[in-house]
Amino acid sequence: MDLGLDRVLGHGPEPLGATLVIVPNDLPALYRLGIVGAGQIARMMHQAAVKLGITPRLFAESLDDSAALASPDTMLSHPDALPSFAESCEVITFEHERIDIGMLERLEADGTMIRPGAKTLRAAFDKLHQRRVLLNRGFEVPIFAELGSPDDLIDFTSVFDWPVAIKSIRAGRPGERSVWIVESQSEALRVMAEQTGRALMVENFQPIVTELAVLVVRRPGGHSRAYPVIELINHDGALREMRAPASVGAAIANEATTTALRIADELGSVGVLAVEFFLTNAGLVVNEIAARPHNAGHLSMEACATSQFENHIRAILDLPLGPTYMRVPAAVTVNVIGGYDHVDPADHLADALAVEGAQIHLYGKHPAPGSKLGHVTAVGDDIEQARDMAKKAEAALMGRRSW
Amino acid sequence: MDLGLDRVLGHGPEPLGATLVIVPNDLPALYRLGIVGAGQIARMMHQAAVKLGITPRLFAESLDDSAALASPDTMLSHPDALPSFAESCEVITFEHERIDIGMLERLEADGTMIRPGAKTLRAAFDKLHQRRVLLNRGFEVPIFAELGSPDDLIDFTSVFDWPVAIKSIRAGRPGERSVWIVESQSEALRVMAEQTGRALMVENFQPIVTELAVLVVRRPGGHSRAYPVIELINHDGALREMRAPASVGAAIANEATTTALRIADELGSVGVLAVEFFLTNAGLVVNEIAARPHNAGHLSMEACATSQFENHIRAILDLPLGPTYMRVPAAVTVNVIGGYDHVDPADHLADALAVEGAQIHLYGKHPAPGSKLGHVTAVGDDIEQARDMAKKAEAALMGRRSW
Repeated sequence: MDLGLDRVLGHGPEPLGATLVIVPNDLPALYRLGIVGAGQIARMMHQAAVKLGITPRLFAESLDDSAALASPDTMLSHPDALPSFAESCEVITFEHERIDIGMLERLEADGTMIRPGAKTLRAAFDKLHQRRVLLNRGFEVPIFAELGSPDDLIDFTSVFDWPVAIKSIRAGRPGERSVWIVESQSEALRVMAEQTGRALMVENFQPIVTELAVLVVRRPGGHSRAYPVIELINHDGALREMRAPASVGAAIANEATTTALRIADELGSVGVLAVEFFLTNAGLVVNEIAARPHNAGHLSMEACATSQFENHIRAILDLPLGPTYMRVPAAVTVNVIGGYDHVDPADHLADALAVEGAQIHLYGKHPAPGSKLGHVTAVGDDIEQARDMAKKAEAALMGRRSW
Repeated sequence: MDLGLDRVLGHGPEPLGATLVIVPNDLPALYRLGIVGAGQIARMMHQAAVKLGITPRLFAESLDDSAALASPDTMLSHPDALPSFAESCEVITFEHERIDIGMLERLEADGTMIRPGAKTLRAAFDKLHQRRVLLNRGFEVPIFAELGSPDDLIDFTSVFDWPVAIKSIRAGRPGERSVWIVESQSEALRVMAEQTGRALMVENFQPIVTELAVLVVRRPGGHSRAYPVIELINHDGALREMRAPASVGAAIANEATTTALRIADELGSVGVLAVEFFLTNAGLVVNEIAARPHNAGHLSMEACATSQFENHIRAILDLPLGPTYMRVPAAVTVNVIGGYDHVDPADHLADALAVEGAQIHLYGKHPAPGSKLGHVTAVGDDIEQARDMAKKAEAALMGRRSW
């Protein structure tokens, strides 16, 4: 296979522009951990593993991927190379959902240690299957139907009022839209036409009071722990801000936590499972699950006794989990998202670091519009204080004067 | 120069055992940060830089060095290669003292951005020069003399009582002994004979109540901040345990902090400067300074608002410093040091992670006797609680049942 040697040897007359690190393959099993994907989630998983003395191997689409920029052991992914990557590792885990589930199931059947396992990943990757599984196990989900043809839409909207939500059954690339709230049949047909080639589903619209997430980390033997309930703030369809604790009462928080723990058990999940909820006037509805460390949990790095990334690494290696409680009264994370002005937050790092106490995380990514380029977490005595600090630093990173 | 291509090409029949990452040289200036050395201090500096979106380049003695195991951009050091390493970077910083100071002074004179600068590094690297500088500026230091010959010893001990401390003027390799407390002339002469080839000095013995360290981080323009005073616990000549806050009164703590800040100013230091003190019945005496993040400050990662590693990166890039206050009432770090039984803490990771709330850091190093293989930090409501947790986890890592 192509290890990129051409690129090294053909690098040109300036040898200092390229350096090489070789990670030997004779490591203890614990250390032969592979991460499929090399975005910012993989970058932070990698950092957590390094803290524990482990250098994971990455399966990256490009050497410019966020995690690859900070890792000595990267294999370039190409179609059908996943089995050979898996073979070079003792255990593999995942940061994205753009993987053929059938291939994962075959790998697992052949003895590859995949964590979380293929059963969990199928439920996470295939949103229609996810809805069916959750409905069958008695969890509250929106009313849904597969959207294979305009007839499916007519059937659904003959029973349920507009608006409806059209969703892609499989996740797109980072930043690619996956949900459309449509008000009319013509609007719906236009989305379906535009998304030809993507499998779609339709759901009844949820009148959302707020959105919540509960992260559960679970070991192969079933021991699990939940992180505090986190509140998600979306703008323009993108997750912008996360707050802990969430502004909900104890009854809702308990129900969300219990539900997330039960889902993790039902799916036999290993590692971090993120369960996103809609809170409606009628109560909690499961929105979506993700079987990996999740944007909602970035605040765990500063705010909790153990970060979600370290606990994910611990769980997939079947090591004891760390405590998940909050070490501070309140924490807020604000995402740093690329704009159409192509502002690079790295150019404004000094301004952002001048915001006392804000923790700046940049991912080393090219500043493309809609791309998550970093995040800021602030902790404080209350949400308002933490939020103010985080928003101020985020605005500074994006070259704005107000927030 | 040799980039190790032979090693890549000659890696053998199993291509998956070696992968390559190439970091391009066309990065913004901020990002072309070089770290001389690749031990655990460089590893943690590297992690702190990655959090800020920066991948430093390492100048490593071996690709198996702790930091090189976790970095995609490593250049193998060899004699006289430092200038070409420096040329490939915008700014270089240092994690060890085994460098020709004259070469650094020439590089700086030629315009290389060295942070901390050569003046600070000379004071840090050359312990005799350090004593002279501190004495001249009016700081309390032990009485000292150069030890060029047995006559110097006789002169010194004709005035001062035994025991005396013999010290190496330059730091040795990690784990190499640099201080000997000797009780008699024959013992002193034996040390001198054994250390032939190392420049030595002699000092009067300090009757130590306890040892303290203050870490100061300072920007090029002079803005500086001090971390809380940390207490150092040595056993058998090796630093074993660090506690914050130190068990000293406010007057001593203030004096240590003020002294450390003044020394940083006097030396024009940039980055972290660690000032170690002896507390004697007669008061504070400066023991030693180090111009880099220091073992004493590892607890800042979990216990302080900004880690010493991040603040070092900020300072050398002339970015605003983060707050240094403790976010918890108490924190204790225990070093994980290799024993003659060659126990590998990585083999006992599960046992250590089972200690609730202890933060385990392993450096990926071969378990050689005397080598720092990792550390454990625990935070708590008081020193006893934190210490118990950290010691318990350290004992677990080393396969011991008691602590």
